Amino acid sequence: MTRLVYRFGVSATDGRAQMKDLLGGKGANLAEMAAAGLPVPPGFTISTAVCKDVSEHHGELPKQLWPEIDAALAEVEAKMELKFGDSTRPLLVSVRSGAAVSMPGMMDTVLNLGMNDAVAEGLAKRTNNPRFAWDAYRRFIQMFADVVMDAKRSAFEDAMDALKHERGAKTDQELTADDLHELVNRFKKVYRDQLGQDFPSEPRVQLERAILAVFRSWMSERAVKYREVQQIRGLLGTAVNVQAMVFGNMGQTSGTGVCFTRNPATGAKELYGEYLIDAQGEDVVAGTRTPLPISTLRDKMPEIHGQLVEMAQRLERHFKNVQDIEFTVQESKLFLLQTRHGKRTGAAAVKVAVDLVAEGLVTKEEAIANLVEPTHVDQLLHPHFADENGYRKAGKVLAKGLNASPGAAVGRIVFDADVAEEWKSRGEKVILARIETSPEDVAGMHAAEGVLTTRGGMTSHAAVVARGWGKPCVAGVGELQIDYRAKTLKSGDRVVKEGDWISLNGTTGEVIEGKAALADALVSGELATFMAWVDEVRTLKVRTNADTPKDAKVARDFGAEGIGLVRTEHMFFEESRIQAMREMILADTVDARKKALAKLLPHQREDFVGIFRVMEGLPVTIRLLDPPLHEFLPHERVQQDELARVMGVNVERLRSRVASLGEANPMLGHRGCRLGITHPEITEMQARAILEAACSVTKEGKKVLPEIMVPLVGHKTELANQKAIVLRVAEDVFREQGMRVEFKVGTMIEVPRAALRAAEIAEDAEFFSFGTNDLTQMTLGFSRDDIASFLPKYLAQGVLQDDPFQTLDVEGVGQLVKLATENGRKQRPGMKIGICGEHGGDPRSIAFCADVGLDYVSCSPFRVPVARLAAAQSALKKKGVKGKVGEA
Amino acid sequence: MTRLVYRFGVSATDGRAQMKDLLGGKGANLAEMAAAGLPVPPGFTISTAVCKDVSEHHGELPKQLWPEIDAALAEVEAKMELKFGDSTRPLLVSVRSGAAVSMPGMMDTVLNLGMNDAVAEGLAKRTNNPRFAWDAYRRFIQMFADVVMDAKRSAFEDAMDALKHERGAKTDQELTADDLHELVNRFKKVYRDQLGQDFPSEPRVQLERAILAVFRSWMSERAVKYREVQQIRGLLGTAVNVQAMVFGNMGQTSGTGVCFTRNPATGAKELYGEYLIDAQGEDVVAGTRTPLPISTLRDKMPEIHGQLVEMAQRLERHFKNVQDIEFTVQESKLFLLQTRHGKRTGAAAVKVAVDLVAEGLVTKEEAIANLVEPTHVDQLLHPHFADENGYRKAGKVLAKGLNASPGAAVGRIVFDADVAEEWKSRGEKVILARIETSPEDVAGMHAAEGVLTTRGGMTSHAAVVARGWGKPCVAGVGELQIDYRAKTLKSGDRVVKEGDWISLNGTTGEVIEGKAALADALVSGELATFMAWVDEVRTLKVRTNADTPKDAKVARDFGAEGIGLVRTEHMFFEESRIQAMREMILADTVDARKKALAKLLPHQREDFVGIFRVMEGLPVTIRLLDPPLHEFLPHERVQQDELARVMGVNVERLRSRVASLGEANPMLGHRGCRLGITHPEITEMQARAILEAACSVTKEGKKVLPEIMVPLVGHKTELANQKAIVLRVAEDVFREQGMRVEFKVGTMIEVPRAALRAAEIAEDAEFFSFGTNDLTQMTLGFSRDDIASFLPKYLAQGVLQDDPFQTLDVEGVGQLVKLATENGRKQRPGMKIGICGEHGGDPRSIAFCADVGLDYVSCSPFRVPVARLAAAQSALKKKGVKGKVGEA
Repeated sequence: MTRLVYRFGVSATDGRAQMKDLLGGKGANLAEMAAAGLPVPPGFTISTAVCKDVSEHHGELPKQLWPEIDAALAEVEAKMELKFGDSTRPLLVSVRSGAAVSMPGMMDTVLNLGMNDAVAEGLAKRTNNPRFAWDAYRRFIQMFADVVMDAKRSAFEDAMDALKHERGAKTDQELTADDLHELVNRFKKVYRDQLGQDFPSEPRVQLERAILAVFRSWMSERAVKYREVQQIRGLLGTAVNVQAMVFGNMGQTSGTGVCFTRNPATGAKELYGEYLIDAQGEDVVAGTRTPLPISTLRDKMPEIHGQLVEMAQRLERHFKNVQDIEFTVQESKLFLLQTRHGKRTGAAAVKVAVDLVAEGLVTKEEAIANLVEPTHVDQLLHPHFADENGYRKAGKVLAKGLNASPGAAVGRIVFDADVAEEWKSRGEKVILARIETSPEDVAGMHAAEGVLTTRGGMTSHAAVVARGWGKPCVAGVGELQIDYRAKTLKSGDRVVKEGDWISLNGTTGEVIEGKAALADALVSGELATFMAWVDEVRTLKVRTNADTPKDAKVARDFGAEGIGLVRTEHMFFEESRIQAMREMILADTVDARKKALAKLLPHQREDFVGIFRVMEGLPVTIRLLDPPLHEFLPHERVQQDELARVMGVNVERLRSRVASLGEANPMLGHRGCRLGITHPEITEMQARAILEAACSVTKEGKKVLPEIMVPLVGHKTELANQKAIVLRVAEDVFREQGMRVEFKVGTMIEVPRAALRAAEIAEDAEFFSFGTNDLTQMTLGFSRDDIASFLPKYLAQGVLQDDPFQTLDVEGVGQLVKLATENGRKQRPGMKIGICGEHGGDPRSIAFCADVGLDYVSCSPFRVPVARLAAAQSALKKKGVKGKVGEA
Repeated sequence: MTRLVYRFGVSATDGRAQMKDLLGGKGANLAEMAAAGLPVPPGFTISTAVCKDVSEHHGELPKQLWPEIDAALAEVEAKMELKFGDSTRPLLVSVRSGAAVSMPGMMDTVLNLGMNDAVAEGLAKRTNNPRFAWDAYRRFIQMFADVVMDAKRSAFEDAMDALKHERGAKTDQELTADDLHELVNRFKKVYRDQLGQDFPSEPRVQLERAILAVFRSWMSERAVKYREVQQIRGLLGTAVNVQAMVFGNMGQTSGTGVCFTRNPATGAKELYGEYLIDAQGEDVVAGTRTPLPISTLRDKMPEIHGQLVEMAQRLERHFKNVQDIEFTVQESKLFLLQTRHGKRTGAAAVKVAVDLVAEGLVTKEEAIANLVEPTHVDQLLHPHFADENGYRKAGKVLAKGLNASPGAAVGRIVFDADVAEEWKSRGEKVILARIETSPEDVAGMHAAEGVLTTRGGMTSHAAVVARGWGKPCVAGVGELQIDYRAKTLKSGDRVVKEGDWISLNGTTGEVIEGKAALADALVSGELATFMAWVDEVRTLKVRTNADTPKDAKVARDFGAEGIGLVRTEHMFFEESRIQAMREMILADTVDARKKALAKLLPHQREDFVGIFRVMEGLPVTIRLLDPPLHEFLPHERVQQDELARVMGVNVERLRSRVASLGEANPMLGHRGCRLGITHPEITEMQARAILEAACSVTKEGKKVLPEIMVPLVGHKTELANQKAIVLRVAEDVFREQGMRVEFKVGTMIEVPRAALRAAEIAEDAEFFSFGTNDLTQMTLGFSRDDIASFLPKYLAQGVLQDDPFQTLDVEGVGQLVKLATENGRKQRPGMKIGICGEHGGDPRSIAFCADVGLDYVSCSPFRVPVARLAAAQSALKKKGVKGKVGEA
């Protein structure tokens, strides 16, 4: 017959980590730790097969189970030198559920099981702490009644409150040992009243009921529903873990603490943590006594300290990672209650990775796969706050919005882009707060330390621009009200006025009142080493989205291998150019339009010259004009008056032109290649600027690789139309310049139809670049500017698992990406295909891009290192290098 | 050796209709007519194989061609009793190109070939009409130089103008025979100057050059380009048709005319047309002489009349359709120059179809497939103008817009919906003209005879609403300017003021100044007969989109087999309801919202009761609330003030609520099931109204088949969420009512993602209905409200072939429809699937729906008969019943 009970930490350990199906996650992990020689409190796991048996046999435990439990329990008693139900040296146990997948709706935990009047008396004597003993007892009754017997929790709380009232006690702490003894008696009465039976004082009965309760909870409505919704199928059931309780409050030879195997802030190789003598775990957390630093343990309990140091090494060797452990010393005996991978800062993560490789504990590949998260790298590139918990505890958090661009920013708040520029010019640090931002605010955003908006999502204008600069941004903080006239920001009745100090945590989305202290970005020397390993591993290339030579330089320094997206329209917003742009838009004839475009040509050419120089030898994908023309015109009357005056045109004509360009749904309007088709002279000017720049930089002896990208193509004919214009202009330019330059013409795939018709579009397109922002908008029918009104509820209710503008919707949008990639390459074998949407900087989306065989991802400059790591991790996963090993 | 020359209308006819590849369309058709015994002027066709030979052999005609031409020409001479190049009885011929597919860019026609000085003299004598002879000669030189030799056309025009100037003639008609003789001489000189060679007076040389010119034109740049763009491949080349010229101006035994085999206005079985004695075809067209009705031919030329009557019967038997023929009588000999299917009115089409079946000429299926167009049926259902050419000739057409809803409307123009209602109430007929319409204009639109808008497309609000009512609408007339303040409509400098009469032709899109005369809708008794045949044939069901019992009744009378779409939101715009709707939207709490919804419940229930009664026994698909909430709120300050007053709320709060509901792209915003998920109480109310109504009508003993449709689903979870609410409410209602009603819950497929994930969505959806309006918007990235700014250029440049909102984009959107249909039915075999977008009323789109196996299409009530016919025609096509037979 197969074994039903698996022991751990006794004479033998029967299970292993890989036996999750039979032992559940918790049981398998306990077995793994015990088998590795770690001093976990002994116990045993009743297998999931029993759960199946129980649910098939009307809720009865199988007969052959008890002999196995008895045998295992005897071994635990022997190991602990205690006895279950004994009144002098009582063994208490915990009972916990644990399936292969963690699952809400199942019975959680019963502690201190095995308690009764005699045991409590014995425990009081042994610990010399009757208050502890009676408190533990009353807690057990309450927990047993609630968790195992499903009694009403409030009845016990009422009894507790009544006693406190009688004793004039305000807190639980004020109740004495006698009070708690009395409470135990009252709880037993409540138990009887509630459940119509006496509280079972027999430990074996307690144990049986607790085990059965765990198994029954597997079939509870909530657990069944959860498995249904999460589509968890094929599991036998839950396992039950029975484990000895250990106590750190048994006098001066006992204690409890937490520690990291290395310093989680710096990565230094040293034990790091704190502990208390004669205390329970909750005392460390509660803060009633001040814990001591772990270094002092060397003096107080030298033997234990030695064991801890030795165990830290063993743990790191076993788990190949820094561990965060909880331990208890019971009468000079060390027990490990829990170990898990230790959370650490970005700096520590990189140092630990490099050190563990040097120490031979992990390979480079394992270090990349397991020891550094993309967010760690991200953290290293941005300033952060010195003490996040500090400002939280001080109640300084005004509101929380979207963490639109990571990093910490501190400055005085202003509500106008011009004011931001002005204050900055006189040396002030400012935070720009707007309801939402528009291209007109760009200069002010640039002047600010960080940007705050109360409307808009992760891909709103503010978010995209800020991320591009690596500038902190908190977006869409709906709970804050901005009043432009009063120049105030309100959160409930808290008011921040223009000039007040404010801080933004772009990594968490917090808006903080006042001037929170900054820490410097901790770029350690190890980062270069680590990123070099990363680049050895990955196959997916990483490009950047950059519109200026400056951004391109930053990205190249961060390791970008080309530009995946130059948005030419951003170039038109500079003051010197917007005028010509507006002339072009307001022109009545093609000739007048061409005249205005001729003014823009030298500017555009210079932009491209600058970018081509910086990106020498690397490909540069330039997208032709994309946004609708009305984005370039002022929408407020005052500005329109001004513009009409400057341009010498009739203001009513100007207003009517602005109005006529207005659109019901600009996202689906007259933009992208639609503009280039109705206004071919725009495409001509841009193609000329690109190719003249390419010739000019080539003449300097630099290699230029221009890729001209036509946006918003849905029909093959659209691309053919625009390509013909580009090729014609190219011949003109090459003739004039007396030289030729190699270049490619390709298209964005951002309209669903283009993905569906990729094969025929690839007849003309020499490359594809997925514009997954717009592709997501159209495939899902979600306007990213408007999603804030329902996305929070969608996420809260589980209608969506992720914001599809942050993490690519693999099942929907991803299906189109896959289809277009396959069909595009069928038509044009080896075609270069990348992605230039915001998803290019998201690790999970990058993994998908690698899976479907894209050549590159392109992201904002500050995301480039993150993307390099994510690409490497994805390559390793494909190669079979394991992710998180033995996660505790 | 294979034959190169195919004779027709001589001793034998070598070709047939099906030999298009070898003879071209024109040649094959001439052969078919001759073979059917029709008196076409004799001639021959040089096959396309020769064209291939010529282009492969450097432009030389193959040697063996000439003997065949000579033989054929001799037969033509014999048949006509004339001789090519002879000066007393000269044979003149025409030379025309003709490939299997008609193709611009190829040489068109040379007439009167065979002419020279001697021939002209002879012809002058024979016709006793020297002016005609010299005019024909000078025309021939000009045409030959232009078409065959590619000379500059203007040089000849200049010579003509000079002569007219010399003679003081204002028109060509004033030139005498001598003048024209002189012009022939001058033209010969121009020819020599232009081409450096003499005009070839030898008819054989003329013929050779003309034939070669046709073949060369096959490879002209324009023709090659055209074939490329149109993807015309696999053709050998063009054929050349050489045919005897016949003349109706050879005295009193000659003449020319046009006639229909049946009356094209009424369908009556009688010759219908007109003719002239001693005249050429152009005289009939030119209007210089008044043609006589064909009935008088019986007296003037009894023999010819008899032949025509007999020929009409033969033609109808042969072509199985009414024919429109051009004939010439040359010296008492009848020739048929052309025959083609006769254009006819809707009334005539139906009568002809029914008559031809009765006469045994065609089967019912052939009648359906070939004799009635969907537009014919459409025409029968709407009033039309008595004389369209009349108002056009009178220059009354102000502008042309989109033919958004067919039919004719006449009334006095007003620019405000309220004014329309007011004038209507005092008995005036009005036309409502707006820049665009919104739901607030609905009552005024209903009061108007027709609706005119200057902005918006085929699926704009005005167009959709008007089509729903069968009310004429001309939309998006960009060339007209409406000035609301001045109450004027301007077209250039023509001004129409409020109260002026105006007419709209919704079938053609014309806007007509003044009061054009109307004809009654000609619904003939035959229509019922014909539509009954249609229903026998089709398999695709036809439902209707209807929001009121009245519309539902109209549609059912038109043959609708259910409702495919009830838009519940239209019900909320009635004055008594919009108030409660607005209360609901402005409510701060769920409770307040529920209170407002409770006020709407009885109204909604009554709507559904009415619809269920009308549609007894047929399925009714009801879509839950779809549009964004801001559509229900007033956007102008005055109305907001009023609303705030009526509702007793703070006007600033109201304005801020309106503003906060505003969206950048409402099309992709917070609407459809997104509303139902964030505001579940709306779905609850609607489900309750539907199911209570269903119970109530069932209790009346009527069968009710409700189908509840969740809009804008993109994710399986969205549908699951809404379905759970509906099922829960259903159980409540059934318990309360003490009865159950069968119903289905399904979804619109209108978001591309839903089409991609159709299989998993079908786990919950009991039916699909493609919302192809929105599916087109999202798949193509075209906002239908904004497309007007670039669609005209797209169509003009051939970037698009059709407006995708009128005719389904089969390659893009259709691919999603196909995929979703297949995957939906894989998951749920036999699943009912239909389409409820505007495409449901478009014949080509209906054919596609039938092809992919949809169960039904749903369209506006007045399109139902059209859709029935289109569905039948598509079924017949699938079955192999031929479309248009022998199109001439």
